[in-house]
Amino acid sequence: MIVTFVNIWVKEEYIDAFIKASRENHLESIKESGNLRFDILRDPGDPSKFVFYEAYTSEEYADGHKKTPHYLKWRDTVADWMARPREGVRYNILYPENELL
Amino acid sequence: MIVTFVNIWVKEEYIDAFIKASRENHLESIKESGNLRFDILRDPGDPSKFVFYEAYTSEEYADGHKKTPHYLKWRDTVADWMARPREGVRYNILYPENELL
Repeated sequence: MIVTFVNIWVKEEYIDAFIKASRENHLESIKESGNLRFDILRDPGDPSKFVFYEAYTSEEYADGHKKTPHYLKWRDTVADWMARPREGVRYNILYPENELL
Repeated sequence: MIVTFVNIWVKEEYIDAFIKASRENHLESIKESGNLRFDILRDPGDPSKFVFYEAYTSEEYADGHKKTPHYLKWRDTVADWMARPREGVRYNILYPENELL
């Protein structure tokens, strides 16, 4: 099982639209095969900073997310709203030890 | 709902013992009232670097974790195994919108 943290900085004027588009992406992503978590977090000290916490049962499923229609729609929708490039960081999951989360 | 990321760097000679102690902490923490997630992650590029991803339904429950016997036992057990001080970072959870994770 692997996790990707995606650090996201949004231009202030697009924050509301970003949240709306990301909610749609969240709702579709949690339905994907192999998806375990798709948490959307917001920095309490910086309302323009978000983190996506995405957990999948395998690297293949994590990579597959980037080929889904909802991801591609989200990516194109938010492209001009980024204050700076997104940063993704991968981790392995030690615990929970299985998919019964 | 809130999340705490805890960044942890472990002295190399204590990594196996740290994983064992943290597994015990994980297994008890996920039973706590208000706990939603207690994921233990490992950096694939640095086997001595771990992240705990801890989600609770409220700040009170998140703070309550630090008063539990299993947390206190873990804290004391790993105290001398840290390569440097732990760093905790808090985030709010936007989505999922409720506790049905």
